[in-house]
Amino acid sequence: MGKNYLVILLLFIGAPLFAQQDSILIRKLYSETLQQDVMDINLKYLTSKIGARIAGSVQAKQTVEWAAGILAQFHPDSLYLQPVMVPHWVRGEQEFAGMISKGISASLDVCALGGSVGTNGTLTAQVVEVRSWNELSALDDSKVKGKIVFFNRAMDAREPETFNAYLSAVDQRSLGAIAASKKGAVGAMIRSLTLAKDDYPHTGALSYEEAVRKIPVAALSTNSADNLSKALKADPFLQVSLEMNCVQLPDELSYNVIAELKGHKYPQEIVSVGAHLDSWDLGEGASDDGTGIVQAMEVLRLFTKIGITPERTLRIILYMNEEAGAHGGKQYASQVREANEVHVAAIESDAGGFIPRGFRIEASPAVIAKVRGWSQLLVPYHAGDIRLQQRGVDLVPMKGIAKALLSLDCDDSRLFYIHHSALDTYDQVNPREVQLGAGAMAAMAFLFCKYGL
Amino acid sequence: MGKNYLVILLLFIGAPLFAQQDSILIRKLYSETLQQDVMDINLKYLTSKIGARIAGSVQAKQTVEWAAGILAQFHPDSLYLQPVMVPHWVRGEQEFAGMISKGISASLDVCALGGSVGTNGTLTAQVVEVRSWNELSALDDSKVKGKIVFFNRAMDAREPETFNAYLSAVDQRSLGAIAASKKGAVGAMIRSLTLAKDDYPHTGALSYEEAVRKIPVAALSTNSADNLSKALKADPFLQVSLEMNCVQLPDELSYNVIAELKGHKYPQEIVSVGAHLDSWDLGEGASDDGTGIVQAMEVLRLFTKIGITPERTLRIILYMNEEAGAHGGKQYASQVREANEVHVAAIESDAGGFIPRGFRIEASPAVIAKVRGWSQLLVPYHAGDIRLQQRGVDLVPMKGIAKALLSLDCDDSRLFYIHHSALDTYDQVNPREVQLGAGAMAAMAFLFCKYGL
Repeated sequence: MGKNYLVILLLFIGAPLFAQQDSILIRKLYSETLQQDVMDINLKYLTSKIGARIAGSVQAKQTVEWAAGILAQFHPDSLYLQPVMVPHWVRGEQEFAGMISKGISASLDVCALGGSVGTNGTLTAQVVEVRSWNELSALDDSKVKGKIVFFNRAMDAREPETFNAYLSAVDQRSLGAIAASKKGAVGAMIRSLTLAKDDYPHTGALSYEEAVRKIPVAALSTNSADNLSKALKADPFLQVSLEMNCVQLPDELSYNVIAELKGHKYPQEIVSVGAHLDSWDLGEGASDDGTGIVQAMEVLRLFTKIGITPERTLRIILYMNEEAGAHGGKQYASQVREANEVHVAAIESDAGGFIPRGFRIEASPAVIAKVRGWSQLLVPYHAGDIRLQQRGVDLVPMKGIAKALLSLDCDDSRLFYIHHSALDTYDQVNPREVQLGAGAMAAMAFLFCKYGL
Repeated sequence: MGKNYLVILLLFIGAPLFAQQDSILIRKLYSETLQQDVMDINLKYLTSKIGARIAGSVQAKQTVEWAAGILAQFHPDSLYLQPVMVPHWVRGEQEFAGMISKGISASLDVCALGGSVGTNGTLTAQVVEVRSWNELSALDDSKVKGKIVFFNRAMDAREPETFNAYLSAVDQRSLGAIAASKKGAVGAMIRSLTLAKDDYPHTGALSYEEAVRKIPVAALSTNSADNLSKALKADPFLQVSLEMNCVQLPDELSYNVIAELKGHKYPQEIVSVGAHLDSWDLGEGASDDGTGIVQAMEVLRLFTKIGITPERTLRIILYMNEEAGAHGGKQYASQVREANEVHVAAIESDAGGFIPRGFRIEASPAVIAKVRGWSQLLVPYHAGDIRLQQRGVDLVPMKGIAKALLSLDCDDSRLFYIHHSALDTYDQVNPREVQLGAGAMAAMAFLFCKYGL
């Protein structure tokens, strides 16, 4: 370690003393997290013993209890559950699709999108394939009425920024149900949002509109989407059968889990570090957002282990139900507003837990400049990039309340192979990448706690 | 794609026209590789149909034929095999270790280090554990004589740069055999070079010295190393049995595989892009260096697909036997020297095929400054870092011949979990990370071909 330690110190010769001290402390945070397997053990437990934990489920309840138990071990000054009502959607046992063309049938790999209504038995209909909104609107309603709209625009793999590739296609998932229903469709199917050609459907939230009839929507694996598209070219009149008995149950009481380390100088000023407890119901919710959960908890562990008594209050927030409406994030923000709390910064880790590049920020130009100054301290860890447009969904309700919103920015090359699918499992996670992310989160939280805004 | 394309263009408003043109061409290279699964298909074939391919093996021979076949499909101007004699070490069927303490025996997960002599039956001896060279030299020879030296220094996980963590422990693997033998040891065991705590031993090359008796050396999985260390504390006199019937066979004739695209302006000036064909005999050699092989081949495919007719000659070199002595790299360099060829730059991909950060370079300060200028074109792809100390082992013999040596620099967080072990398999590779690396290699090769040095 000696040599690199020296290099980092040398970087700050001529720099103010505080930067040297901060640099040393940040190195301590990294050293501690890089040599401990606490996060790995916790993530393994979460993913293997609890597993997927959609809001409202028994597993989500178990996750609340488990997370509170772990946080309690890390010596917070206070620890509490914040009640929040969450939707409770359940994927049914029956989830099946097949296509029948000229008497020959073939199965399709599907899963219901989160929040979808069921098919109420088997839905059988012809299919109309589109790749753009223009293509759909150009169709006469009579060509859509009574049919299933098949949204088959692929993510644009040519985008060097993988998230932009995701953005190039995610509108189909969020808005497809409404657009198809408005044209009289009885259902919709969406090409899965993944860069892989495989047999795994990827779920995710859809939107319905109050006045528009809710139709069932399924995601198709990319292989199934290609097969269906090919079959449609040969036989435009082929029929698809879809059966999904998913259902929306009554809302459930659940909780955000919150732990604090009281600020010794400005206890009323809060710096929050968070992640979301819930996941989709496929896979194990390892990357989304198991890694974020253990990273947020790790920040508390690192502070108490290193012996940091923060100037401002460090608050760890584990939000319930990010995936289906950010109810936990909204509830938290409304409580902050009601109590008139001063929120310096809100940080979230919900980008997969892969190689951290830095942070995405939403703040005033002056604050961004200040954070960019601090971020030089993270350059030795390849985590010094401060880019615009924070991406923490749970932080959106804090806009206008917290002076700075920051989401951990991770390389997302791997994320969109596993995202929201059965492939989001523990074995896809690299412990060291998670550690490097926790180091960056702890360092940024430390700087906000020390210097405020 | 449109939006980002524009952003990249805007970056170069006011920049010289050549930079704008280069930026557009580099974007084409990336777009082409990001949307094609050629590399993925080839890597899958290599790892599943051929698999591990240690120098001298049947699989190495198959790899030469396969690679030449693939390169031929990418329309090179010439394609040839360059003969090279390589060592042929074979791991035996028997590879076993156990410890016996107070009548109770427990097995240990081991593998022979590459090039190790066998044990000639079962070797049973007491064990002396050390963690540093000082510790070993402080021991009286009588404490080592007739024993197995157990080198148990772990990689220093606290190093934020994972490669530095590797460097903090790899000396035990390279030099342990000599040091232990000089003290009279009959064998040595090395804690595997991995950040994981698991049951997989990691192999790699050892060194012997002419005048020092060759003793057998095995790598222990980290779990086994911990178990042995613990058991030694309870019983310093416990015995370890080691049986390995690995053997060094006579050298074999093998080949570097070389393909060229002739420079239309300065055909005598060469820019090479390479990787190594051989792998260790555990796992599938997917990351080391299957990804490098398909990336180097992809550079040729991209040039011909995009329609680049390079000013200088692009030469793809797939080297044989990097792992056990870089015989292919040495042979290539000696041929270049003999033919008095002008080598502008030699580039290699042998860093695992993970997220590319840029390149590591060895060149004159003026050349480094020039390459740093070019590297701005790779910043939009997060591949703009130019750091010192190139790491391509096959390039070392080209020092003093090529004006610039560059190795693709990848994030190595994941590498040292799988490196040289049974875990180096296709499923650990992310196709998009490999694509982004190929894009960076093609861009850098293009710039060297266009501008020279």
